[in-house]
Amino acid sequence: MKFKPVSDHFLLSLPLLFLLFHNRAEARLFSLSRPKPDAAASFARWLVSQSSWGVLNTLSSDLGGAPFGNVVSFSDGLPHEGHGIPYFYLTTLDPTASNALKDQRSSLTISEYPVGTCGKADPENPTCSKITLTGKLKVVAGNTGEAEFAKKALFTKHPEMKGWPKDHNFQFFKLEIENIFLINWFGGPKPLTVEQYLQAEM
Amino acid sequence: MKFKPVSDHFLLSLPLLFLLFHNRAEARLFSLSRPKPDAAASFARWLVSQSSWGVLNTLSSDLGGAPFGNVVSFSDGLPHEGHGIPYFYLTTLDPTASNALKDQRSSLTISEYPVGTCGKADPENPTCSKITLTGKLKVVAGNTGEAEFAKKALFTKHPEMKGWPKDHNFQFFKLEIENIFLINWFGGPKPLTVEQYLQAEM
Repeated sequence: MKFKPVSDHFLLSLPLLFLLFHNRAEARLFSLSRPKPDAAASFARWLVSQSSWGVLNTLSSDLGGAPFGNVVSFSDGLPHEGHGIPYFYLTTLDPTASNALKDQRSSLTISEYPVGTCGKADPENPTCSKITLTGKLKVVAGNTGEAEFAKKALFTKHPEMKGWPKDHNFQFFKLEIENIFLINWFGGPKPLTVEQYLQAEM
Repeated sequence: MKFKPVSDHFLLSLPLLFLLFHNRAEARLFSLSRPKPDAAASFARWLVSQSSWGVLNTLSSDLGGAPFGNVVSFSDGLPHEGHGIPYFYLTTLDPTASNALKDQRSSLTISEYPVGTCGKADPENPTCSKITLTGKLKVVAGNTGEAEFAKKALFTKHPEMKGWPKDHNFQFFKLEIENIFLINWFGGPKPLTVEQYLQAEM
């Protein structure tokens, strides 16, 4: 006995059909919201706000001044309300935060690949976008409006952070952006100033 | 009219049930091959060989000596035959390769998150593993056995590389590993020497 093709069976099930089209519609909405590559500022803001994690790079005095990348979660605001500045929740038990307290030079690197909108392009293909925000990694002062914003932005996108161990002394950090390296098409990095990036309309 | 719960409809369709169990079996095989966190060397080798891309860090003289992360594809061997040393296919049109030619200090950072085996853990949760290999980023000399190995390892996992523009002068690079930072459970980084990592049985 041969199994019938799966598609025949899907057609027998109206709720499944509904689910299929429902998911397709969502997928389409999502890909519609990806800005065109030429709209560099909006594109960069889109990539940062769609992403929940990246690699945060600092200078490691323990490793002879080598650049040290570390996987971190971040948030630039509430979902669909990103403001462009990445905030982090870090502990000095981890080398990244302690490196930054010695030397603030830092960068955050994000790939579009895990977002799922690169199609069949290789992660290193320039049409699969990537961004590196370079600047200074700084502690956000406690009991300020900015600390409240950072907390809400991070804990909304990363709910488990609320329960992370108190004795690890996690602190809010932010990356003060000084330079932007965005590749989202052929032809090299897009010219994009920090001001254009921060003022982009979403 | 209310839709019936989807599960009822799945149960009506034997081929769908078959597909579900088939996929589950694959998922289980895959997760069985994930070494236990205590087996640090095998775990590190598993994570590197399962991954096809990461963030490669160099020191940017153009950006005041800042650590500069860049999304790159890599390969440490044929699928399921990883040897632990990551190889890259880079052009000096990109800052990473030109940085490395000035200063070889570098690191490669990989997250388990996009591999898909972190369950519900946040990307920054220590049970969602991550590795940073720190060392020297070097050009692989042409017309050598190692260059042949790098080519085969990269072009097998990243087939589109074969067609990348000849006039971009892509070259094979490798990371000579000097230090390993592996987090794959609570309790901080796993002690792991480069020798243990390279000699691990897979």
